[in-house]
Amino acid sequence: MPSSAPIGVFDSGVGGLTVLQALRRRLPEESFLYLGDTARLPYGTKSRSTVARYATQATRILVDRGVKALVIACNTASAVALTELQTRYAPLPVFGVVEPGAEAAAVAGTTRVLVLATESTVSGGAYQRALLARQSRLEVLARPCPLLVTLAEEGRHDGPLVELALREYLRGTLDPGPRRRVSTVLLGCTHFPVFRPALARILEQAGLGDTRVVDSAETTARAVAAEVAAGRVVPAGAGSRTLALLATDGRERFRRVGAYFLHHPVEAVELVDL
Amino acid sequence: MPSSAPIGVFDSGVGGLTVLQALRRRLPEESFLYLGDTARLPYGTKSRSTVARYATQATRILVDRGVKALVIACNTASAVALTELQTRYAPLPVFGVVEPGAEAAAVAGTTRVLVLATESTVSGGAYQRALLARQSRLEVLARPCPLLVTLAEEGRHDGPLVELALREYLRGTLDPGPRRRVSTVLLGCTHFPVFRPALARILEQAGLGDTRVVDSAETTARAVAAEVAAGRVVPAGAGSRTLALLATDGRERFRRVGAYFLHHPVEAVELVDL
Repeated sequence: MPSSAPIGVFDSGVGGLTVLQALRRRLPEESFLYLGDTARLPYGTKSRSTVARYATQATRILVDRGVKALVIACNTASAVALTELQTRYAPLPVFGVVEPGAEAAAVAGTTRVLVLATESTVSGGAYQRALLARQSRLEVLARPCPLLVTLAEEGRHDGPLVELALREYLRGTLDPGPRRRVSTVLLGCTHFPVFRPALARILEQAGLGDTRVVDSAETTARAVAAEVAAGRVVPAGAGSRTLALLATDGRERFRRVGAYFLHHPVEAVELVDL
Repeated sequence: MPSSAPIGVFDSGVGGLTVLQALRRRLPEESFLYLGDTARLPYGTKSRSTVARYATQATRILVDRGVKALVIACNTASAVALTELQTRYAPLPVFGVVEPGAEAAAVAGTTRVLVLATESTVSGGAYQRALLARQSRLEVLARPCPLLVTLAEEGRHDGPLVELALREYLRGTLDPGPRRRVSTVLLGCTHFPVFRPALARILEQAGLGDTRVVDSAETTARAVAAEVAAGRVVPAGAGSRTLALLATDGRERFRRVGAYFLHHPVEAVELVDL
């Protein structure tokens, strides 16, 4: 029996909207309920225990509203709290963004992966572990890129500052020599898909246009869509799909910054208290 | 009778350490107790009501530990919650960073002030109001500079990225024409004093070396020192001065980033729960 219940998408802020956008593109029949914990962002600079506590409090709201599946569209929270949330909410399907990204990156032919992520995702090592679990001989480099988060939220997705910041974080990996160059860049932060055009241009200019770029928004949407297709997430039936956006603070900023990520104006945002 | 009680210094994170450093330079006999609400930073992107609630919860810890004066070393919290905190904790002297900065900027000869601050400080308009209250004919420009906060916390205080970001935020004000140029740059975020050397160089290169740069860390320390000298804050007596640092999360990061601001290693950081 089909279910009109929404798929819940949770992030610490607006970055997860890139995952929401990818999900809506792949699952045009489905309804979505998005929660951005904007009062307490960013998670990326906070400790593991704090992030786990915040993620548990915030996802409870989505579960209480009857979502039929839950996507943790936040790399930091996925890395720290996914297993705990899966256990707590079983048998509700709960997806993270780390595993799908690692899955897509660690394919045949991959030799050296550069993970660009937040400070806590990098220091937590979740991508590094997920990649090595799939291909133990991979060489994995991981770099914290706090400036890219700020640039994305400012709506700066290209231009001189973005280019300089990207070059800075890519430093040493653009060497076209076979020994040092990376085969894959894994965008391990949901904010970063907005930089794909700038990144592609920089790689092209460096003669590295064949470098694969994997983003966890796109790969997560693919993983969720596969579960819907397999019936492990009950698909939506006929009827109108809905989209509702919740935030824990700063509705105005959420609308403005959210529009940069969804590529269209953000309408009503409901404020919820945690 | 002198008092060995510490002066409390509160910030949403590590930026207030620039104020602490300025205070210690001016008041070498005094003890200090610093609290960074690192679990919930940044305040600069959050709504006024959330910031006020957080500031009240956090400063309560300092007051309960017996500080003899309280410095709100956070522009966002000063702008939003200073009056409320002064009322709540009266007769404890409570200082903000906005008024001293505005006082130092709005002197004779000042015509056009550029305020560089966080998003919420700019949109809250506290500096604009404080400046105009002192000199109603001032022209005040205020620009939100979120990248500078990230750069400061990354320990990048100069270099190509800092220079490009500063030039971006100064855009249109470096025009040496008498009509558009600013007479004063007011650094309205406690993170920003670290950029003074880079800013001075950029102004110099633009032929604007006589532009005044006012930073609210230095001006606040001066204001507090004046109150101590006047006896309105009871001065310390003989004996050893102490420095204690508290944070609500991420001790390791606090120590690392804090060292960039204090210009010396940060020793023990006590974790407190809010």
